[in-house]
Amino acid sequence: MPYTFNTFIVISVAVSLLSFGCAMWLNSWVKAQPSSNAKIAEVGKLIRDGSHTFLRQEYIMLAKFAGVLAIVVGVFLPRPIWHGNPIDNIVMIFSFLAGCVFSGIAGIIGIRIATIANVKTAEAAVEGMRPAFMAGFRGGAVMGLAVVGSTLLGVASIMFIAKDPTALLGFSFGASTLALFAKAGGGIFTKTADISADLVGKVELGIPEDDPRNPAVIADNVGDNVGDVAGMGADLFDSNVASMAAALVLATVLDRTAGGMANSSMVLCYAAAGLLASVIGIFLARMGKGGPTQALNNSTYITTGIYAVLTAGATLLFNFEWRIWGASIVGLLVGVVIGFASDYFTDDSKKPVQNTAKASELGPAFTILSGISYGLMSTLPALVGIAVSALVSYKLCEPIGEGYAMFGIAMSAVGMLSIVGMIISNDAYGPIVDNARGLAEMGDLGEDVIEIADSLDSAGNTVKAITKGFAIGAAGLTVIALLGAFISEVNEAAIELGVPGITGFDIMDPTVFFGMLVGVAIPAVFSAMLIMGVDRNAQRMVEEIHRQFDEIPGLKEGHPDAVPEYDKCIEVATTGALRELIPAGLTVILITLAVGFIGGVKAIGGYLCGNIVTGLLLALFMSNAGGLWDNAKKYVESGHHGGKGSEAHKAAVVGDTVGDPFKDTSGPSINTQITVVSLISSLAATLFLAFSIF
Amino acid sequence: MPYTFNTFIVISVAVSLLSFGCAMWLNSWVKAQPSSNAKIAEVGKLIRDGSHTFLRQEYIMLAKFAGVLAIVVGVFLPRPIWHGNPIDNIVMIFSFLAGCVFSGIAGIIGIRIATIANVKTAEAAVEGMRPAFMAGFRGGAVMGLAVVGSTLLGVASIMFIAKDPTALLGFSFGASTLALFAKAGGGIFTKTADISADLVGKVELGIPEDDPRNPAVIADNVGDNVGDVAGMGADLFDSNVASMAAALVLATVLDRTAGGMANSSMVLCYAAAGLLASVIGIFLARMGKGGPTQALNNSTYITTGIYAVLTAGATLLFNFEWRIWGASIVGLLVGVVIGFASDYFTDDSKKPVQNTAKASELGPAFTILSGISYGLMSTLPALVGIAVSALVSYKLCEPIGEGYAMFGIAMSAVGMLSIVGMIISNDAYGPIVDNARGLAEMGDLGEDVIEIADSLDSAGNTVKAITKGFAIGAAGLTVIALLGAFISEVNEAAIELGVPGITGFDIMDPTVFFGMLVGVAIPAVFSAMLIMGVDRNAQRMVEEIHRQFDEIPGLKEGHPDAVPEYDKCIEVATTGALRELIPAGLTVILITLAVGFIGGVKAIGGYLCGNIVTGLLLALFMSNAGGLWDNAKKYVESGHHGGKGSEAHKAAVVGDTVGDPFKDTSGPSINTQITVVSLISSLAATLFLAFSIF
Repeated sequence: MPYTFNTFIVISVAVSLLSFGCAMWLNSWVKAQPSSNAKIAEVGKLIRDGSHTFLRQEYIMLAKFAGVLAIVVGVFLPRPIWHGNPIDNIVMIFSFLAGCVFSGIAGIIGIRIATIANVKTAEAAVEGMRPAFMAGFRGGAVMGLAVVGSTLLGVASIMFIAKDPTALLGFSFGASTLALFAKAGGGIFTKTADISADLVGKVELGIPEDDPRNPAVIADNVGDNVGDVAGMGADLFDSNVASMAAALVLATVLDRTAGGMANSSMVLCYAAAGLLASVIGIFLARMGKGGPTQALNNSTYITTGIYAVLTAGATLLFNFEWRIWGASIVGLLVGVVIGFASDYFTDDSKKPVQNTAKASELGPAFTILSGISYGLMSTLPALVGIAVSALVSYKLCEPIGEGYAMFGIAMSAVGMLSIVGMIISNDAYGPIVDNARGLAEMGDLGEDVIEIADSLDSAGNTVKAITKGFAIGAAGLTVIALLGAFISEVNEAAIELGVPGITGFDIMDPTVFFGMLVGVAIPAVFSAMLIMGVDRNAQRMVEEIHRQFDEIPGLKEGHPDAVPEYDKCIEVATTGALRELIPAGLTVILITLAVGFIGGVKAIGGYLCGNIVTGLLLALFMSNAGGLWDNAKKYVESGHHGGKGSEAHKAAVVGDTVGDPFKDTSGPSINTQITVVSLISSLAATLFLAFSIF
Repeated sequence: MPYTFNTFIVISVAVSLLSFGCAMWLNSWVKAQPSSNAKIAEVGKLIRDGSHTFLRQEYIMLAKFAGVLAIVVGVFLPRPIWHGNPIDNIVMIFSFLAGCVFSGIAGIIGIRIATIANVKTAEAAVEGMRPAFMAGFRGGAVMGLAVVGSTLLGVASIMFIAKDPTALLGFSFGASTLALFAKAGGGIFTKTADISADLVGKVELGIPEDDPRNPAVIADNVGDNVGDVAGMGADLFDSNVASMAAALVLATVLDRTAGGMANSSMVLCYAAAGLLASVIGIFLARMGKGGPTQALNNSTYITTGIYAVLTAGATLLFNFEWRIWGASIVGLLVGVVIGFASDYFTDDSKKPVQNTAKASELGPAFTILSGISYGLMSTLPALVGIAVSALVSYKLCEPIGEGYAMFGIAMSAVGMLSIVGMIISNDAYGPIVDNARGLAEMGDLGEDVIEIADSLDSAGNTVKAITKGFAIGAAGLTVIALLGAFISEVNEAAIELGVPGITGFDIMDPTVFFGMLVGVAIPAVFSAMLIMGVDRNAQRMVEEIHRQFDEIPGLKEGHPDAVPEYDKCIEVATTGALRELIPAGLTVILITLAVGFIGGVKAIGGYLCGNIVTGLLLALFMSNAGGLWDNAKKYVESGHHGGKGSEAHKAAVVGDTVGDPFKDTSGPSINTQITVVSLISSLAATLFLAFSIF
């Protein structure tokens, strides 16, 4: 069928609008669910207000930061303003800010619906598991559709207006800058609240989780929203945009050589197909006899199938390259395999979790050693999976012509991220039902309802491990594609500057190797700074909780008139998180610039490579070890090895506390850190080429 | 001054013999020290016999393993026997076995003297700190001189007989195969004993460390010897041989082009100078007012200075290239800097240890999180140091001519390892005085003597961190040089096979990238397997200790007639350690071969690179985090944050237990794992080139 690139711009915009429409429908559906319990409404409002407070403060700070950065971007990118065409710089500022704003809006939408859906889910649980599941799932879906809709709309608009994928890198840079801070800031907030609530509540005073006497309990629930909903949404928005940007940069080079816009069209077409598949998958989702876990997994598989069929149809219809379709499907399948591997290491019906639970009988040191060992081992299948999918898609697309091999890898990443709408829905479902459990407890809905909420929550945890594996795998492929995009940016700049371009990065070149060794250390340093941030912030928060228990009469004894100052705790967590995240983010950005200006583009190539490989290693290790400890604790709590209160339980709680910042702060932030570094490098390619020392 | 290569063979042999002579003199000196306490003699004998039992069983097993491997080596290396000259294969077998035997002998010598020196040191402590220091230090020096003497003698002999540095790779492969198992096996043994002795003794029963009632106490002391003396000796023997082998492979290629043997001569000359410097440094060592730590550090600095002067003199005398001298000095200086950085992160007068001790007040989870964070951060200075030293030595030597840049890196590694005789002396000092402390306790020598032994022990711990940083840095540079050696082996084979050779490894080549991602996972999987091995083995040992306390009447109460069955514990630790180490070692070797036969030499290039970078990262992280936790515990024990028995102390003990296998099992074994993988790759280069799938 004959088509122009604009056909796909139109298709993309149409599918985006469709997904917004569906999100709005789901939004009203969720809001229309009954709610009547006054206590729950009150607590729900506290959580909602707390979330908005954090988000407002975070965005105010980020707006300032982004404003400063936008000026820097405008002066230097894509070329120093005194060298190139100033219009390009203005487009770049606009794209950068658009990336920030779109990402921010997606976060706000997610928080809005999540803090309504949690209440609805809690009350629906009174009616039974099925309606509660639907409320939680559809709440998450609003977020999923909003995020992916805005990705596609943003990318299509920028391509239509700027007609230049370099501007898209600016958009992507905006998105990932925001994501870096949203994920890291939210991650610090959520774990600060979680750890300190547990530390004082469960460990010191022996009161149950979600007990309303605990001043940190609302902050803990707020944390689920700002960390897991807003943060994770920003993270996946960023990965999704980055994968499309990388693919479009490479496609444009190919299109320029081949004439026409076939490759660029294909990127948009596949992305639109992925969103459409997610929309259909979301509306087909129902909970059957298999319970919530199976319902969530089924919806993922269905979406995967629909995507394969839709893209095959499109490939036939528009006469795209079948080999590239193959690369995209390979990516998707490997994503599923990585998910399974993560599941093996974090599921409580499998050996790793059970062995760690058993090791806890000997004391906390053994819980830690066992979890660290399994976490380290869990990196092998995922790394091999990413390696295989990169190799296969490269070899598959190499015969098409020069440059197609790297484009194949980029499309493999696009394929892996195609069903991201579904992934985000499942992911946002987690904190919603987690909150709902807390609300059921605080609203005194009774043991049966709490049990239902518990099942929903446990399904959320299991699915989370799978989606995290997916997200890390996709980030891995995306950054390989971004390396390709970096080279093509460098070569474009080299032509303009009249200097020799590059074709690759030789490990044996000492400049490359120098960069690589420095790059290897970055994810380690970055995650260490975040963990220390959580640590310091939790200590501040523990002091605040102690103060309240000391100063508010009757609070410890549970006197009904004694109300803790929930908002003080939220404030401590908020200011602390924002204070801690800036140094970590800045360190990464500054070291990248230092390496680039010292060693030039070759050092940066090595630096990105080192960053990617250890970034993947540490992200997988931390996410899986964290998930494993969490589930090992739950496994003990469900009555194994002495159950709650036993020595094994105490040890397992230590493991869970160590795992918390691993899996919810540093682990998932590393993805974004890698993307940010890759994008800065691509954007500053001209500068590094012109001004480096070596 | 005119010279031939044989001049330096003679010099090397002469210096080796000198060092053996000095070692023998020191050996008699130590033996001549007075000892009279019957109780100490008895316990000392138990430790000595236990160490020999372990070593005998280990070597019997390794002899079988090495025998099988020698046959494989003989059939396939350097080329399949039906393809090349069978004489080469016989030389290769001989070299491989020589490497195993030399490494084994060094281990035996070390254990022999260490298990005598511990008794002498304990009794000398009655006379005061100074004589005790001399007994411990000179005992360690016997090991240091024996190891480095045999390195130089072995390398010189092989070069004289085989006249081919490829045979040297075989020698090095033999040394590192043995080291892999000696380090891993000894590491598992020592931590099995240490952890289970602490777990039952200190935690369950509340009896002091080194209490003779504890059935595991002798095994614990045996562990110090087999892990830290024999294992560390084998490890550094291996690094030292590998650095010389890599330098000589590269030097031979250069010499072939340039005519003469100037570069090969230089390698031997510098190595001999390093050994001579160590001999002088050891004889000058005295304990002054600064105490044992300063005495140990001073001896390192003095040796460094002597080395710089000696090599400068030789360079002048024999007209070597000054730029290469510079590279070697850069390596040495960076080694010292890396040592300082390790010291910062593990010294109890610095912030990291103190903050971790403070965090322990909040419970074990915070001890762990703090230690992990600092451990991750500690990788940055060392990685940057290695990166800078590689870059500087490359750039320094590049102007000399083609191929000299990589030779510069190799000589930088030789420089860093030049003072390895001193390093091993300081390292072996540690377990000797640690044992002496135990003997002083068990021999009832009184509080004053135990205090002296404690100071000596604490100096050992501090110095250990520095020498470990040194060892890891040297291993990093060595494997970069081995990558260069790998390329030159591949190209030699390529000429014979009539296929195109390689000049480097492009990160953007998907085969290279594929190899790299797999390589990245290997150190993680390897260390996880070792940690799990310790874990499983400690559980077996705890059961054995419980059995003895249950079955031997009066043991728990400390009845003087109740003697624990120390040998049973040693047996459990021995069989367990040997059972656990084989799978870990085999996994690494087999995955390497799989990658080579699937992806060919390019995949192996990426694989080695991935292996090196994460290997360095994890080795640094684990060694430093482990050292930090150990010292944080000691810091609390010295009276801070509540001192012994406080909650902070319990938490710090958990950190120490987690850190034990990190710093003494997996961390230092990673070095050897990287070297083994690099050597296999170089040796099997022809096979990979001829038979790979891609």
